[in-house]
Amino acid sequence: MRVAVLVLLLSLVARNCDGAATDIELDAKAQYLHRLDSLNLLLYTFLLIATVLTVWTFKHRRLRFLHETGLAVIYGLIVGAIIRYGFTTSNTIQHLPVVPAAPYNQSIPPDILWFQVFENKTGGGFGNKTYAYSFRGEIYKQDSEIDKKATFDPEIFFNIILPPIIFHAGYSLKRKYFFRNLGAILMYALVGTTVSSFIIGALMYAFMQLIPHLSTSFTFLDTLYFGALISPTDPLTIISIFNDLHVDVNLYALVFGESVLNDAVAIVLSGAIQNYGERYLTPGSNKFELVAFFQAMGDFVGIFSLSLFIGATMGCITALLTKFTRVRDFPLLESALFVLMSYSTFLIAEASDLTGVVAVLFCGICQAHYTYNNLSSDSRQRTKQLFELLNFLAENFIFSYIGVSMFTFPKHHFDIGFIISGFFCALLGRAANVYPLSFLLNLGRKPKISLNFQHMLFCAGLRGAMSFALAIRNTVSEARQAMLTTTSLIVILTVIFQGGMASQFLSWFNIPVGVDEEVEVLSHNGVRSVYNSMDTAGSGGEGGFGELELHRERSSPDGSVGVGTGGKPNEKALLARIWGNFDTRYMKPLLTHSRPTLLETLPVCCTPIARLLTTTQQMTQDDMGHKIDSDSDLCLDEQEFERRRASSQPTHVRGISDRSHV
Amino acid sequence: MRVAVLVLLLSLVARNCDGAATDIELDAKAQYLHRLDSLNLLLYTFLLIATVLTVWTFKHRRLRFLHETGLAVIYGLIVGAIIRYGFTTSNTIQHLPVVPAAPYNQSIPPDILWFQVFENKTGGGFGNKTYAYSFRGEIYKQDSEIDKKATFDPEIFFNIILPPIIFHAGYSLKRKYFFRNLGAILMYALVGTTVSSFIIGALMYAFMQLIPHLSTSFTFLDTLYFGALISPTDPLTIISIFNDLHVDVNLYALVFGESVLNDAVAIVLSGAIQNYGERYLTPGSNKFELVAFFQAMGDFVGIFSLSLFIGATMGCITALLTKFTRVRDFPLLESALFVLMSYSTFLIAEASDLTGVVAVLFCGICQAHYTYNNLSSDSRQRTKQLFELLNFLAENFIFSYIGVSMFTFPKHHFDIGFIISGFFCALLGRAANVYPLSFLLNLGRKPKISLNFQHMLFCAGLRGAMSFALAIRNTVSEARQAMLTTTSLIVILTVIFQGGMASQFLSWFNIPVGVDEEVEVLSHNGVRSVYNSMDTAGSGGEGGFGELELHRERSSPDGSVGVGTGGKPNEKALLARIWGNFDTRYMKPLLTHSRPTLLETLPVCCTPIARLLTTTQQMTQDDMGHKIDSDSDLCLDEQEFERRRASSQPTHVRGISDRSHV
Repeated sequence: MRVAVLVLLLSLVARNCDGAATDIELDAKAQYLHRLDSLNLLLYTFLLIATVLTVWTFKHRRLRFLHETGLAVIYGLIVGAIIRYGFTTSNTIQHLPVVPAAPYNQSIPPDILWFQVFENKTGGGFGNKTYAYSFRGEIYKQDSEIDKKATFDPEIFFNIILPPIIFHAGYSLKRKYFFRNLGAILMYALVGTTVSSFIIGALMYAFMQLIPHLSTSFTFLDTLYFGALISPTDPLTIISIFNDLHVDVNLYALVFGESVLNDAVAIVLSGAIQNYGERYLTPGSNKFELVAFFQAMGDFVGIFSLSLFIGATMGCITALLTKFTRVRDFPLLESALFVLMSYSTFLIAEASDLTGVVAVLFCGICQAHYTYNNLSSDSRQRTKQLFELLNFLAENFIFSYIGVSMFTFPKHHFDIGFIISGFFCALLGRAANVYPLSFLLNLGRKPKISLNFQHMLFCAGLRGAMSFALAIRNTVSEARQAMLTTTSLIVILTVIFQGGMASQFLSWFNIPVGVDEEVEVLSHNGVRSVYNSMDTAGSGGEGGFGELELHRERSSPDGSVGVGTGGKPNEKALLARIWGNFDTRYMKPLLTHSRPTLLETLPVCCTPIARLLTTTQQMTQDDMGHKIDSDSDLCLDEQEFERRRASSQPTHVRGISDRSHV
Repeated sequence: MRVAVLVLLLSLVARNCDGAATDIELDAKAQYLHRLDSLNLLLYTFLLIATVLTVWTFKHRRLRFLHETGLAVIYGLIVGAIIRYGFTTSNTIQHLPVVPAAPYNQSIPPDILWFQVFENKTGGGFGNKTYAYSFRGEIYKQDSEIDKKATFDPEIFFNIILPPIIFHAGYSLKRKYFFRNLGAILMYALVGTTVSSFIIGALMYAFMQLIPHLSTSFTFLDTLYFGALISPTDPLTIISIFNDLHVDVNLYALVFGESVLNDAVAIVLSGAIQNYGERYLTPGSNKFELVAFFQAMGDFVGIFSLSLFIGATMGCITALLTKFTRVRDFPLLESALFVLMSYSTFLIAEASDLTGVVAVLFCGICQAHYTYNNLSSDSRQRTKQLFELLNFLAENFIFSYIGVSMFTFPKHHFDIGFIISGFFCALLGRAANVYPLSFLLNLGRKPKISLNFQHMLFCAGLRGAMSFALAIRNTVSEARQAMLTTTSLIVILTVIFQGGMASQFLSWFNIPVGVDEEVEVLSHNGVRSVYNSMDTAGSGGEGGFGELELHRERSSPDGSVGVGTGGKPNEKALLARIWGNFDTRYMKPLLTHSRPTLLETLPVCCTPIARLLTTTQQMTQDDMGHKIDSDSDLCLDEQEFERRRASSQPTHVRGISDRSHV
């Protein structure tokens, strides 16, 4: 049984102290539990403090062989081992089997038990009292200990830890490069993650059939679930090293964009697999129903797109609120509004039975794309810094916890066969994602993704917070416990070793580092970029469609945006261009103060509406166009920010767009 | 029984879904509860959004008759009424009385119940399953409904909502004016709150004896507890109006300093009263034991000073960490360290059975006084803005909740007699705090606190978050429930009416407004200031001992600091001077980069240690002295910040210190 400690947050212990001796004992007990909980949280706080100080030492001495998340994991492992083996466990939790006072025939257990104790004349007893007990979950092994040592309820990961991490990922996305590589990113994230899940699922199932003692405990659905939870990659470690080394921005966009989106895909996919299992399979059987399968796929698509829709809508509403009110005059109110709207996105999605994490991701992207442009400079900085800090704390907390829980979480199940198959399949799944899809992508386009980039994408496939959170969410069966153990080990080892070797990988694969935003490929002729048009950027390349097209359209408002793609249009580029065009003509003028205004882009018949939706600020300013539209003021971290400021001379693409604009 | 909803945070519902039909029902139920909880949190998020938008409208239109907290309360009341009367209550919580399966003879109830259900062959039943239930509290009335509608566990106020508010109060304290008025503030906060508690307690007890139906339900300890919880004042509303109107800074310091400290006093005092009741009184009796009383007083002093010590120590450790490491090179790490250290202060105090809220208050003061000076400018801004935002959200949440819970909290007990006595005694208690103590303070000092200031202090005695949190913490008896109701009403009415009339009060009492920091009294000769030395500031007044004495000492390093007190030293000034001297000579050089260094202030024998504790930065910089020492860069809010920036020309006191320095 998973018992939450979470205590400081919970402290559900009622302090009913009205003089009676037992009440005082009860109060003392409640206080004792509260202190235990405080100590528990304190442990993690100190772990984080130790991580922060060590990270500083490493950065100070320019050591790159271990990233902060790797450090957090290692410290967590050490502390977990100390807790596990250093202290004799004095289990203070008492449990008592009870039976109903009256016959109970409903199919689900009640929410609250009333434990009635009648006066015990002989001892000090309770007197005639009733205590309330609330439902926690099912107990699967009668002999399993309820262990409160340094563990938290898994649901806090989904409700407290992941949302700020995912929101920050969306909010700090470098949208220009993200949209430039949209096709490849969507391919890797949507198709790749699904393919990887099914391949891992099938392979694991095959392996399980080969290992005698495991063949009965895993259904295909179990291994498929494992495939879904082990497929998403974690960007943190790699991205931070990419940042430090100023790696090629397109590779950066591919790695970051993919790992952000595949988290969202994995959580919805695993939910769909679970729903499928719940609805259509009787326990133990392994029957596969085609209809049910398509229903599950429908679930997947429906939940994903509805969550996306809610996130995007809330982002747009925030943009409208900040555009049409002058709340920016009061930055504190504005920041509060921003935070509250973003948080309510999560809650709305959860309350609608959708996936809050996916909703906040797209909310974050919209907030960055539209709302950010309307904010006062104070609020921009405040929200950026706030989520950066929250992200840092949440991220390090989860990695500390992965380390500690390796030793303290009572539901681990070490099975060497499953662990080895898991590692093997995780590698294979990653390969099945990167190489075939890159091959397919390269078929459809002239500018190919080079083999070195593919190797780097393969090596950047660390597993992280999302895999762990999905694995620890459900540990009711031995199969699920073996999955948790294997997932934890994969996360720990990939974060420490793959993360630690990231800069080594970069040099092995000859990835250009130390390059500047727009000029990166010009100065590295030996290396082919994702888009070869970047190599010939002097001819007026098509990159940064958002920004560029804005100005292109102003010079040719008839909407002929086919120019500049170098005569190599493909479907993705078309999709991206259609959206970019729509975005620049309608969405941005509606949601931000950018030019051209709706008065210019909407047909004449809509002029009254357009006038209503255009602010005077929008009408009066005219040189704000490319500033507002650029995402260069929205960066990942401070160093990045400094670096961009240092390189603020107009680069070739910007230069062109500026010329067409002025 | 108080049932927590807190749900998003909690989500203790285990999702055990492994295929069986009942598991799916269970899962659906868990999901339903999770959705309810999300909806519940969503309600408050939307309330806060509505408050933010309305506050903006009010500020935009320069309406001052209603402060944001007042608005939050009013919106809360409206929504609470809608929930209460607008929806038919469909209670989905099922409860079941149970008895132990085996004899149970311990004096306190077990932590976990195992509810065993054996296979029910006839129905769809559970199968052979065991469910875990965890302890929630005692049920006092068998018929009481467990109501989950829009309520939270009271403990979240102490563990989540109050800490950031109190930390922010300490962190944003204008220390210069606070220390200048230290004597009066300590008098009002320590003595005043205690006197007020006892007077309210005694009066209420007397009133209760006069009202027949109440005479038996309230012990003296009950009314004393009520006195302690209704005595602390809330600064928020008043202070925000003071800020807007640029009120006299000494009055500002008195009001703010007192209300910050009396929150700390009240929480410890009410704890001591409760402990006294638990330990030394048998239920129902009203026996007063002198020894026990002094033990309770010892409790009070001990817990208060130990909490203070922990808070101050952690603040100083943070200062040392930020001084002696170059973590400031990485602002994100530095901010994270700052937040983690401050949060661990709370946890350490709670884990030691002390009062976390008091510890974070003094931690906040120390962080502002020492650590803040060592931080990078990025971290200064980030931490300031972070806590400002947290404070804003927490504060408005608690006032919304006060409004909503007035209708939805199931433990209200309206007793008109108690309510009227409560209002009367709260007013009288405030008067008994302000007027006699001002009289005493005026006896001991030549510069008197004018009667108009006293009236303003009296009128600034709104009740707020702390009173409510203390009242809702314990609602087991009817007496306690009547206290909660009365406290809620007092908070709501004082916040709306006293808060709304604040600017009116200021003009009635001729309080100088629109004045600048140091010159305020010079331009308002008609109004006497707290220190009349301020009136003759041209003679080189003693104000701002911290800053001024630093430079004075550098010109006369023998330590003759008696100069400039105008020949009217009294004990408080002496105390403040001794501390100020010690602070400037030893604490600041040790904990910050300020001058003089320890090399200059420590005796020669300690030079090696002093050299160790002095940074090169400290040695090399020399014009940082007064900048570092000033607290003018640490402000309450943005407007304040703007205002100070606007008035940054050297004022008379600063002018003098600068001259003596250069």
